[in-house]
Amino acid sequence: MIALQSGKTPLYEQIYLAIKRDIEDGKISFGEKLPSTRLLAANLNVSRFTVDIAYEQLVSEGYIQAKAGSGFFVCDLSNLFSGIADCGGSCVPEVVHDSQAPRAHIDFSPFAVDPIHFPYNTWKKRNREVMDKTADLLVAREAMGDRGLRETLSAYLYHARGVHCTPDQILVGAGNEYLLLLLVQILGGCCSVVMEDPTYVQAYEVFRHAGCQVRVGAMDEDGLICSELADNPENVVYVMPSHQFPMGTIMPLGRRQELLDWAEGAEGRYIIEDDHDSEFRYVGMPIPSLQSRDQKDCVIYLGTFSKSISPALRMSYMVLPGHLSERFYRQFDFYTSTVATGQQLVVRAFMESGDFERHLNRMRRVYKAKHDFLLKELKKRSWVRKIRGENAGLHLVVEVDCGYSEAELLELALERGVRVYGMSSYRIGIAAQEEPVTLLLGFGGLTEGELLEGLAVLDELLSA
Amino acid sequence: MIALQSGKTPLYEQIYLAIKRDIEDGKISFGEKLPSTRLLAANLNVSRFTVDIAYEQLVSEGYIQAKAGSGFFVCDLSNLFSGIADCGGSCVPEVVHDSQAPRAHIDFSPFAVDPIHFPYNTWKKRNREVMDKTADLLVAREAMGDRGLRETLSAYLYHARGVHCTPDQILVGAGNEYLLLLLVQILGGCCSVVMEDPTYVQAYEVFRHAGCQVRVGAMDEDGLICSELADNPENVVYVMPSHQFPMGTIMPLGRRQELLDWAEGAEGRYIIEDDHDSEFRYVGMPIPSLQSRDQKDCVIYLGTFSKSISPALRMSYMVLPGHLSERFYRQFDFYTSTVATGQQLVVRAFMESGDFERHLNRMRRVYKAKHDFLLKELKKRSWVRKIRGENAGLHLVVEVDCGYSEAELLELALERGVRVYGMSSYRIGIAAQEEPVTLLLGFGGLTEGELLEGLAVLDELLSA
Repeated sequence: MIALQSGKTPLYEQIYLAIKRDIEDGKISFGEKLPSTRLLAANLNVSRFTVDIAYEQLVSEGYIQAKAGSGFFVCDLSNLFSGIADCGGSCVPEVVHDSQAPRAHIDFSPFAVDPIHFPYNTWKKRNREVMDKTADLLVAREAMGDRGLRETLSAYLYHARGVHCTPDQILVGAGNEYLLLLLVQILGGCCSVVMEDPTYVQAYEVFRHAGCQVRVGAMDEDGLICSELADNPENVVYVMPSHQFPMGTIMPLGRRQELLDWAEGAEGRYIIEDDHDSEFRYVGMPIPSLQSRDQKDCVIYLGTFSKSISPALRMSYMVLPGHLSERFYRQFDFYTSTVATGQQLVVRAFMESGDFERHLNRMRRVYKAKHDFLLKELKKRSWVRKIRGENAGLHLVVEVDCGYSEAELLELALERGVRVYGMSSYRIGIAAQEEPVTLLLGFGGLTEGELLEGLAVLDELLSA
Repeated sequence: MIALQSGKTPLYEQIYLAIKRDIEDGKISFGEKLPSTRLLAANLNVSRFTVDIAYEQLVSEGYIQAKAGSGFFVCDLSNLFSGIADCGGSCVPEVVHDSQAPRAHIDFSPFAVDPIHFPYNTWKKRNREVMDKTADLLVAREAMGDRGLRETLSAYLYHARGVHCTPDQILVGAGNEYLLLLLVQILGGCCSVVMEDPTYVQAYEVFRHAGCQVRVGAMDEDGLICSELADNPENVVYVMPSHQFPMGTIMPLGRRQELLDWAEGAEGRYIIEDDHDSEFRYVGMPIPSLQSRDQKDCVIYLGTFSKSISPALRMSYMVLPGHLSERFYRQFDFYTSTVATGQQLVVRAFMESGDFERHLNRMRRVYKAKHDFLLKELKKRSWVRKIRGENAGLHLVVEVDCGYSEAELLELALERGVRVYGMSSYRIGIAAQEEPVTLLLGFGGLTEGELLEGLAVLDELLSA
């Protein structure tokens, strides 16, 4: 008999639970008939509707089944409940991942942006405005991204980077890795890729895990050596011609043309131009993009807001040659956009209002000051052998005189609360024999004071 | 001779452009020596620094090169400029994609959410709060997603869906398609998958394009028939046991257990449980998740905020069995999170504050009213043969008496400003012989008035 208590739990739920328990405990067994809803309702002195819901729940969960005209019968659940251990929260192990490792006091990350000069108020303002566009807010955007945002982007890219494209060629997505994943599919799956070494390791990992063949191309001080490409089977080259990461090399015009000639030399050859940080060049004008010289639609241009706004935004964009964007529309626009509508509208407003350009101009000054400061300080150091990649970007590459191995140096610095980055972690091939210890010193996220603090620790370790 | 104009363009840029033009026009040819910076500066009556910058730009772009001690010489750019057509904006074709086709006046989309009862003000409030956490805002989150959000999620999933997991097992990502793409990689690439038919077609497309084999499993009114799984090579089953999309079938307990038995029957077998809309059940209690009965870590639970908050949010989450999350941490956490930090923090605040639960309770009432209203109205219609998938979700499946083909009916309705969806577009196998025309009528985004308007058009077409 079911004992109902008045209280929080609805009556139908109490009935459902009681019967469920009886079935699980075997008190009511397979094939047995339950009392009719009318009868049970009368016995329990509840409305028949209440019992109906309880039974309906038991039916939908498969504990009982209705046989037309003859009532409700218990289903066959033989050895269904053997050892179901409902461990609830208790089984939650204590392991905690996301090891925010010993958080360094000073982090020379090449990916950090300046947290002090970010235009928080403008950003908030644009957010508020978008939050008021209630009508728009709940509708997911086109697979390629918000149309208006792409129109703004294509204008910006033409004026800032010489990129020729229509809004239809722009694909907005949640970060470079995602866009590269998608690109591999658009290119027809497992392609075979030539990369620089060292390079942007995440891209390498994406290619590998997407089943692509990856070969490390030969390099010289001008970047990838193109002469040997033709003799090899690869059909895709991934490069950062305007400011190679992490080396900071700028690929000269001649070399760029060789690369384009290679791509134009055969069907189905593509160049992925990752233009990750060209907003920040401190001497002269930005280097025009490789895409701006592309005559045969073989350059795929990849850009990001990670450095120009923030890595926390998770927003990148890819400019596809016309025939590839057509292919996307034909075969891939089942992929819903990966960027929240609100986010896209905020960035669009940020760009259309001119805030973005103002922000870039301001940050160019801010970063140039840090860049110049770090450069000046480094040149004073006896342990600094060679500095590379200056004049642009958010980090410097520094070859150091060092008694330690790279790993040791990083470890010792970290023990002293300073995180520096070693070149070897960006290598995808075999590190050059006897390569001198080389550090990446990112300055974007640090103040001059912090830069000095960090350098002081390196002095302590390296000025032997 | 270079003619400098005072004005907007900086002097160094004018010099750079003038020389660049001369080189491109062949007025200065390969190997020719440029005037020394000192000399040119004197001639142009500008600072030597200005000329330095201009030359440096030409060097970095590869037009000229410096020879130690002897000055600057023009590089070999033979036939580099042949036919470079800078077509600027002019080459922008007029084709416009994202064809927001003839926007229907009334759209019975099964994916639309209610735009009227969304708690815009609460949402704005949480946004403002997050925007004030300036420190947090610029830092990208862990690969699996914001730790705090995942803690909140694991508590919610346990209490709402009986899902057992630690925050470490939860992977937050930009939508189901992205998470499935990732999952295929975590499972070691090309797996072979059994799917229901009809099903969530996007998932099918993702599997296909990720190189998986997909087989349509045999079904009956209880969903996938599990008896035949063992005789087949597939190692992954993708199902929606709590409320199958689009059919609305609920998989009974017995069938669920068969499925689990199959998965536990051999190494490397997995069940992907897509629990897309179980927040909205209008009779009795939610059906417990399949994951809650999983004893051997073979269920991958997939959930989304697309229906519980908005499809515009692009936020989903995947609960991985312990060994798979370990694998993710080991091999895949180079994938930066695909959801903006701000977005994650807003949703976290929305959940922690209780807003989410309040929102769900409210929407459950709102949607139940629409659901009951549409159901009542449909039952009056003579052209309605059969209604399926009631009691849950945001759409009803309606078999209709119809002289037209499905395509014709959809077309005719659209001409009258009403978009309805046909079952066939969710089929991945061959449609059953002679299948009666079956419509999906989503009610989430429509008011009762709009529902009536839409039905009136169908009456006009079907009440012959």
